[in-house]
Amino acid sequence: MKLYDSRMAPNPRRTRIFLAEKGISVPTEQVDIMAKQHKTPEYAAINPFQRMPALVLDDGTVITESIAICRYFEALQPEPPLFGVGAKEIALVEMWNRRCEIEFFAHVAAVFRHQHPAMKELEVPQVPAYAEAMRPRAIRFLEFMDGELGKREFVSGDRYSVADITMLCAVDFMKPARLAMPENLSNVRRWHAAVSARPSARA
Amino acid sequence: MKLYDSRMAPNPRRTRIFLAEKGISVPTEQVDIMAKQHKTPEYAAINPFQRMPALVLDDGTVITESIAICRYFEALQPEPPLFGVGAKEIALVEMWNRRCEIEFFAHVAAVFRHQHPAMKELEVPQVPAYAEAMRPRAIRFLEFMDGELGKREFVSGDRYSVADITMLCAVDFMKPARLAMPENLSNVRRWHAAVSARPSARA
Repeated sequence: MKLYDSRMAPNPRRTRIFLAEKGISVPTEQVDIMAKQHKTPEYAAINPFQRMPALVLDDGTVITESIAICRYFEALQPEPPLFGVGAKEIALVEMWNRRCEIEFFAHVAAVFRHQHPAMKELEVPQVPAYAEAMRPRAIRFLEFMDGELGKREFVSGDRYSVADITMLCAVDFMKPARLAMPENLSNVRRWHAAVSARPSARA
Repeated sequence: MKLYDSRMAPNPRRTRIFLAEKGISVPTEQVDIMAKQHKTPEYAAINPFQRMPALVLDDGTVITESIAICRYFEALQPEPPLFGVGAKEIALVEMWNRRCEIEFFAHVAAVFRHQHPAMKELEVPQVPAYAEAMRPRAIRFLEFMDGELGKREFVSGDRYSVADITMLCAVDFMKPARLAMPENLSNVRRWHAAVSARPSARA
């Protein structure tokens, strides 16, 4: 088994944090996305979409999409559960993970991809007007989450889950995207400090 | 239990097809999105993101995001399995469902939301340049899938899954988005005819 990983990007970080929370270690190969190593024919043979990360199983099966890789390990090793237990919690973790992706992470990524000078050759064409339109939506989601995190400890409930991992990686991706965290969101800041203090955050 | 459903939109259709494949019937209330019923304070109290569908459980818990609702019913009634069985199949279904969402459905939706006159008041601001940038990516994914569907019966393998449901709803959403299916994609057309002929497609 081999995990193709990239230190710089937020999606591979989701998988690394997930594995650290599970206490699972996987042989890893680094792919330097700023040097466009993921755009080589060698990597395209592994993932035709040339995105990171990718997991190659011993039988040659390739699993891409960070959350699909996480689900593979959740099925192999259910403890500690990071996708919920029982129908209601499973649904709520999926809902919050998707809300964090669709209503926040995607917007932060859009700001980065469509406005950052470093992405000029990787996102063609850049559409700065789209980045501008998504910028306030990212901030609105943080304001919404501040209310939610006033009611409970973690993003999807009282248990740390994959939704916290997605949200942590997305919040930390605001810095390269040049989005500032509003000062007054004390619940988001409390939550961010707590999940950042877990050893997995440094994975 | 009550499902807030909308006949016109592709995401509620994903949930309806999923329930039909499971043989599950849920009390439903229609929300007319063209009449902006999902933008009322009444619906915002159910789903603050004012998107469709939403499932309200008997204890008052609200589950939004079509795939989260599907996972709720998969956990309650595993047969027939639509999210895979065993670590590898579970991961591959998740991967293909996400590829269909991220590399295709999102692009078709972007073309619709950012270019269709009917969306002028619902997608503010519309960014037509973004729709234009996503248009060729949607077509490229169909060309890629044509190669994949030459190797197997369904999107994620030899078993019908939620990835087929996502892809079917996204392909059929090309029509309102005014995207034309290329003539020469015979494997995609074979697959589309087969999944459209299942009784669930009319749900």
